[in-house]
Amino acid sequence: MSLLQDLQWRYATKKFNNEAIEEAKLEVILEATRLSASSSGLQPFKVIVVTNQDIKLKLQEAAYGQAQLRDSQAVLVFAGAAEVTEAMIDDYMQNIATTRNVNIESLSGFATSIKGNVNSKTKEEQQHWAAKQAYIALGTALVAAANERVDACPMEGFVPAKFDEILGLAEHGLKSAVIMCVGLRSEEDKLADMAKVRKSKEDFFILKG
Amino acid sequence: MSLLQDLQWRYATKKFNNEAIEEAKLEVILEATRLSASSSGLQPFKVIVVTNQDIKLKLQEAAYGQAQLRDSQAVLVFAGAAEVTEAMIDDYMQNIATTRNVNIESLSGFATSIKGNVNSKTKEEQQHWAAKQAYIALGTALVAAANERVDACPMEGFVPAKFDEILGLAEHGLKSAVIMCVGLRSEEDKLADMAKVRKSKEDFFILKG
Repeated sequence: MSLLQDLQWRYATKKFNNEAIEEAKLEVILEATRLSASSSGLQPFKVIVVTNQDIKLKLQEAAYGQAQLRDSQAVLVFAGAAEVTEAMIDDYMQNIATTRNVNIESLSGFATSIKGNVNSKTKEEQQHWAAKQAYIALGTALVAAANERVDACPMEGFVPAKFDEILGLAEHGLKSAVIMCVGLRSEEDKLADMAKVRKSKEDFFILKG
Repeated sequence: MSLLQDLQWRYATKKFNNEAIEEAKLEVILEATRLSASSSGLQPFKVIVVTNQDIKLKLQEAAYGQAQLRDSQAVLVFAGAAEVTEAMIDDYMQNIATTRNVNIESLSGFATSIKGNVNSKTKEEQQHWAAKQAYIALGTALVAAANERVDACPMEGFVPAKFDEILGLAEHGLKSAVIMCVGLRSEEDKLADMAKVRKSKEDFFILKG
């Protein structure tokens, strides 16, 4: 199946059945998320993988009772940094130095450049910026799930402050940005067979050729 | 090749060669972008596809002279709505009604829900929200490019106001959010063979099992 067929197959699943998804498939989705691109490669966000049913039920309450949180097999919470610190950038440089076996001093220009960019933003701008990087990963994760024929529902309809509290994100310096429920579609989900609605090419693209 | 191999293959290409990419491959990347998920399916953004070399050179100037804009085959500019209007939501409802052959009155609850959500945001919050949807599409486009073995460089290092002016985005009610240069990697790009640097699984995921 081609990637375009994967994208045609997927939809924001509103009703999941109760079948477990293969562990290996979830692992692929998570690995794709981890490999996703981010600005300068900094990855100023983390992904909380919630499979515990008691926690999922608490999250459901903080998401206007939406059944996807209860019925999906895992809830992935994409959480951006509450503040992008110089320590994060230093840790990243250490990771580059170790992974590529290069001298950390050779990375000082790169570090300075990222720090200059981040420090030019207010704390609120840093949060938006970190969240946007998480949204790239969400895009990656949605394609990966479809490629594995695992259903997913990306969701913004939840109370971030309540999610942060339930998951203890403040102590990690994180704020929940967007979530993705994963599982398998129920045969009763009428949305599954409906035609995909998208802007036409003429409306969506502006060509400057 | 698996999707994880695609993601391992890709990297933020800093040096493109001058070879054209197959038109069909660019079409797949664009179609994947158009099919990408967005909140409520509203797609509050557009993609400007710049292949005109004169315009690319102007954009290069507004992107700190970075060579990727000059040397890539196309520059995709993801531009979010400057303001998310009720008219956009009405147009979307019309699109659903036409595509799915349903009565537009049956969609009134859905329309009211999206309008309530959008109207609760300030104009600046609407811009961030629209941009975030565009970042999901960026994530999708990056995977699609890698799957087609087309190289890409996602970039935030440009002056949005200058891009908006060069591309005449104000008249479209758009603001440039993020860009993606597409082309083929040069053999001289030393970054191509370097190990990918990512947070470890232990660092990137928080498991609540």
